[in-house]
Amino acid sequence: MEDNRLRIVQAAHDLFNARGYKSVTISDLADRLGMSKKTIYQYFSGKEEIAAAVIEGALARVNEIIDMAESQQSDPLHALQDALIQVKDQITLLGPLFLEDVQKYLPDLWQRIEQHRAEKIKFIERLLQRAQDAGLVKDIEPRLAMVIFFEAGQALIRPDSLSRHGFSMVDVLDALIKIFCTGIVEPKIFEPNVKL
Amino acid sequence: MEDNRLRIVQAAHDLFNARGYKSVTISDLADRLGMSKKTIYQYFSGKEEIAAAVIEGALARVNEIIDMAESQQSDPLHALQDALIQVKDQITLLGPLFLEDVQKYLPDLWQRIEQHRAEKIKFIERLLQRAQDAGLVKDIEPRLAMVIFFEAGQALIRPDSLSRHGFSMVDVLDALIKIFCTGIVEPKIFEPNVKL
Repeated sequence: MEDNRLRIVQAAHDLFNARGYKSVTISDLADRLGMSKKTIYQYFSGKEEIAAAVIEGALARVNEIIDMAESQQSDPLHALQDALIQVKDQITLLGPLFLEDVQKYLPDLWQRIEQHRAEKIKFIERLLQRAQDAGLVKDIEPRLAMVIFFEAGQALIRPDSLSRHGFSMVDVLDALIKIFCTGIVEPKIFEPNVKL
Repeated sequence: MEDNRLRIVQAAHDLFNARGYKSVTISDLADRLGMSKKTIYQYFSGKEEIAAAVIEGALARVNEIIDMAESQQSDPLHALQDALIQVKDQITLLGPLFLEDVQKYLPDLWQRIEQHRAEKIKFIERLLQRAQDAGLVKDIEPRLAMVIFFEAGQALIRPDSLSRHGFSMVDVLDALIKIFCTGIVEPKIFEPNVKL
């Protein structure tokens, strides 16, 4: 039984990410699963509840990644970098079309995503603080560094920003993570008398 | 004669930056200069034209900084970092209250600022390209790095963003420049077997 539920969520995940939320119907989902619509309705009240389950699944995986990073005792900077890359992988798995549709048609669910992001992003500050205590990060208040990463990420992955500049979400997040994770390290390279 | 014009612009610069555009009158300006309003009107049609002269002065100084950075033949990364810091100094000299007022009450002038920024920001891409050609920057397309810096900066210096997070424009830009300029350097520090 629970297996059916998981299968529905997984198939919805794939369909939504490929075609967005709006254009996918319960019939499409039933066809893909070789399942009757009636069976689907035994588990979910409708498409909106299925979308919520897809999103909650992704958020749960993000939580696991962050918990893992924070439980790592050594090397907070690598833990941070690894976690950012894995979270980015989860986010980009969701597909920009699906996320756009959620923003447009499911405002409550979108708010749930934004609230989750605002809460969870603080792991960056905590790991940066640990890195700073270990002498790895210099001269930048961890909360400020987190805010810079957060606001830069938010601004860059807006659909209008991506299309205006002609980059994909993966391109932009990869580069942002790379710049950020190198950039917060103690910048010995810019000290006087160090030849670049 | 030209001396009077400069004195008016300089005094307006100081007054606008301290108190914003809206609340400053031509009488305030005349008082501060020990000059009659009539004399001021010999040089400018009104407050709006004076604000435009203040802004044009700042943009001209930004242009000088960028030209200087681009004419430097060696060390494009330090040239970039120095230029970003100097441009930041120019921008923060203008005062957030003045900039907010310009955005609100002088939309044409604000558009002139945005257009100037969109054009001039490309010096980052050019210097990064030179740095990359010299083997100093790795794996990040210069235009993408520029877009990240530009969008991050735009998002962070919005008045609502600054007040929400409780940081000043100087704090945020200093940290952004520091993270960016270290972050674009070839990230040897993150290669395997390099102890942080």
